[in-house]
Amino acid sequence: MSKGLPKRSEDYSLWYNELVKRADLAENSAVRGCMVIKPYGYSIWEKMQAQLDIMFKETGHSNAYFPLFIPKSFLSKEASHVEGFAKECAVVTHYRLKNAEDGSGVIVDPEAKLEEELIVRPTSETVIWSTYKNWVQSYRDLPLLVNQWANVVRWEMRTRLFLRTTEFLWQEGHTAHATAKEAMDETVQMMNVYAQFAEEFMAVPVVKGRKTENERFAGADETFCIEAMMQDGKALQAGTSHFLGQNFAKAFDVKFATKEGGLEYVWGTSWGVSTRLMGALIMAHSDDNGLVLPPKLAPIQVVIVPIYRGEAELEAISVKAKEIMAALKKVGVSVKFDDRDTQKPGWKFAEYELKGVPLRIALGPRDLENGTIELARRDTLTKETFDLASQPIADKITGLLEEIQDSIYRKAFDFRASVTTEVNSWDEFKQLLEDKGGFVSAHWDGTSATEEKIKELTKATIRCIPLDRKEESGVCVYTGSPSAGRVYFAKAY
Amino acid sequence: MSKGLPKRSEDYSLWYNELVKRADLAENSAVRGCMVIKPYGYSIWEKMQAQLDIMFKETGHSNAYFPLFIPKSFLSKEASHVEGFAKECAVVTHYRLKNAEDGSGVIVDPEAKLEEELIVRPTSETVIWSTYKNWVQSYRDLPLLVNQWANVVRWEMRTRLFLRTTEFLWQEGHTAHATAKEAMDETVQMMNVYAQFAEEFMAVPVVKGRKTENERFAGADETFCIEAMMQDGKALQAGTSHFLGQNFAKAFDVKFATKEGGLEYVWGTSWGVSTRLMGALIMAHSDDNGLVLPPKLAPIQVVIVPIYRGEAELEAISVKAKEIMAALKKVGVSVKFDDRDTQKPGWKFAEYELKGVPLRIALGPRDLENGTIELARRDTLTKETFDLASQPIADKITGLLEEIQDSIYRKAFDFRASVTTEVNSWDEFKQLLEDKGGFVSAHWDGTSATEEKIKELTKATIRCIPLDRKEESGVCVYTGSPSAGRVYFAKAY
Repeated sequence: MSKGLPKRSEDYSLWYNELVKRADLAENSAVRGCMVIKPYGYSIWEKMQAQLDIMFKETGHSNAYFPLFIPKSFLSKEASHVEGFAKECAVVTHYRLKNAEDGSGVIVDPEAKLEEELIVRPTSETVIWSTYKNWVQSYRDLPLLVNQWANVVRWEMRTRLFLRTTEFLWQEGHTAHATAKEAMDETVQMMNVYAQFAEEFMAVPVVKGRKTENERFAGADETFCIEAMMQDGKALQAGTSHFLGQNFAKAFDVKFATKEGGLEYVWGTSWGVSTRLMGALIMAHSDDNGLVLPPKLAPIQVVIVPIYRGEAELEAISVKAKEIMAALKKVGVSVKFDDRDTQKPGWKFAEYELKGVPLRIALGPRDLENGTIELARRDTLTKETFDLASQPIADKITGLLEEIQDSIYRKAFDFRASVTTEVNSWDEFKQLLEDKGGFVSAHWDGTSATEEKIKELTKATIRCIPLDRKEESGVCVYTGSPSAGRVYFAKAY
Repeated sequence: MSKGLPKRSEDYSLWYNELVKRADLAENSAVRGCMVIKPYGYSIWEKMQAQLDIMFKETGHSNAYFPLFIPKSFLSKEASHVEGFAKECAVVTHYRLKNAEDGSGVIVDPEAKLEEELIVRPTSETVIWSTYKNWVQSYRDLPLLVNQWANVVRWEMRTRLFLRTTEFLWQEGHTAHATAKEAMDETVQMMNVYAQFAEEFMAVPVVKGRKTENERFAGADETFCIEAMMQDGKALQAGTSHFLGQNFAKAFDVKFATKEGGLEYVWGTSWGVSTRLMGALIMAHSDDNGLVLPPKLAPIQVVIVPIYRGEAELEAISVKAKEIMAALKKVGVSVKFDDRDTQKPGWKFAEYELKGVPLRIALGPRDLENGTIELARRDTLTKETFDLASQPIADKITGLLEEIQDSIYRKAFDFRASVTTEVNSWDEFKQLLEDKGGFVSAHWDGTSATEEKIKELTKATIRCIPLDRKEESGVCVYTGSPSAGRVYFAKAY
């Protein structure tokens, strides 16, 4: 840690990039658009994975694994799907290297050309539905409720750490059902699981909604999403859940014998969240001092920093610190005692602020005398002196961690409210997007043409048609044509 | 489940393939050499992963994630490394598809050719060491103790489910150290972690040893391994741990400032186990009725099957079954109550035998009257009637599960002992490999030429130089030249 971070108010984008790197979350790799997720960043992702995995299993899903590669012909089977993904695929054409005859090094062996090219999966619907064909014969085989944790590749032209990378990590759920209703219920259920995860664990409030036809997943009949709001007034799509209708069942001929003796196509869903969530987590809460992590996802929840001169003081402090650690570990709080003698306390304070550790305990000789500790909250940057005799330390800390979790959520919720604006005129619409950003709630005539025109003029897209919008007729903010209700516009990541 | 499995004694290889498919572990995918790991198979892999991950973290390692793609030039930087992997690489040459002008479908866009081809990682030493170059400046940055859970691709010509697939899942640890001794200690430590995992969790006894130069990892100065013995007398390499010396540090110029003010190359290790372990687990224990799983890795440890006629009987049985389930779950035993009315008890018995569930409880009206259950062990196929009043059910079951875990290990251990033979003549050597197989412990003159000749003549390779071999001089079983000790030969997967 050399100097301070750039300030959000001065250069939000630079602040984000620097924060990701300096907090040891991720960095760009030597491979264009691909990132290295560093141990500290990965440990946050692991906590996300673990919680999501529990929630998927509680809703009846099992994990499985499908091939990384997709034959080119598979990708082409669903017309709008290939349209959506063909332009950004990594293509494997050969399966061997050899030494160049001129001794210049290793080259691709032209004799090892594949008959059919393989695509590195950008998403797995096609390879999975080609498998489901063999797994589904009768209604007894349904529903299939499968999830996969995997890496995927989309050849993005402009990449940013976590937010948009050529390779990213994600989970993709792929389910098959006997009826349209069951599939739709699943689609909505998984959107709700994502929303619950975002709000309760990431402390990020989200808007649940449907995507417009323009923004739908390539191959879906309906896409649901959760949309989050970042501190710079830009929205971030944090998870999507797709109702696939019978599109992939038809493309891969997946039929089942019904209870009544008929033969019908299966109904499908797919849903996913990715390492993009890391971007949302970072941008929703962090400040000019560094990361702010919600306690439920913080790899280290409490750090203890000793303030001492000489071995004897450190030893006395260590005894007390270890008592505190034992009490905290007993109630499941993750705690680190940083007794390195290579760095000064001030340096350590700054480092754990940068890394977003929710609570810091400082412990010096005066504290030992008085039976106190100094407690510092990362989210508010406030300090208090806590009397160890006044309350069991474990109760105090678990109470504070809950309070921090709530408080971070509340702050993000209030911020979002402050940048969500109902707008009724085109001038106001443009002005607002220019000045303040945020969610602009406006009437829209329901056509793709208008949606595209607005995007062209303002860079704002329709983030979603909120599920909880009130029925309110009005006129489109751009064309003046009739509208059945407001939608959320925003500039977005 | 239609008919029985092929018998091991008749066609071991067919038995294995059929078992993997029928027990819902894995199947071949539409992509050549790539498998689909089905939910039941994946749930076993998840248990392996979870335990290994705990053991890696207990030994100080953190997880991280590095790119899937490796620039071709990186692979070439370590001479013997590229030699070892170049012949079996999937190569990405393009990043876009487009519609063919003649309307025939989607083709690779020739204009989207990469300047430098990317290799789908067969292993990640090169991309990781190119990253470590930036992570290591001083001795304070060492050791780096990093692990990655990932998919890798090696273009194998002949593939078999789990044992050898083009894509497989694995973990790869990559560490960097200040001294050769530290790196060697780490290498040995991780071999020991693997051995402990294999023996305590998989219930598979292993031989710890060093590989000969021929069998070493491409780029390593020394490779340690654990070797397991399958029921057909063939060995299976179950994990490797490599001492990389300074080879990758030199190839990627990774130096550090020493405490004393010097500048030195870093010392490295790498170590990995893969979904191949699934193959070892299956082949080590299973029988002609199906899988036999050690309780510590069984996704379902106990299944309860009700034996009933009519709703009323099922209801009464369900009450008792749920009592038992609650008692078992309380002590952490995973238990399933299969009350499906679509299948008969006999069918269910066969299914759970096929799937290797360690304990089966059958519960009928007679049992309810008598206060008993019928307990069947999968490993021995023995049954007993257990009086529920005689002992708390949780104690009985946890005791039995431990007994099964031990007993499976013991059986595999005794089998291995029965097929491990000391041999002193070439005729005996050939005969033994032909008839009985197993580990043949014989003297070898230490040369690669002899090793290769023996392989050519018998198909047996040197599995390892056992760490615990006694110092015993002798003469090479093939050439008669002097030998410093016995090594283990075997035919191998």
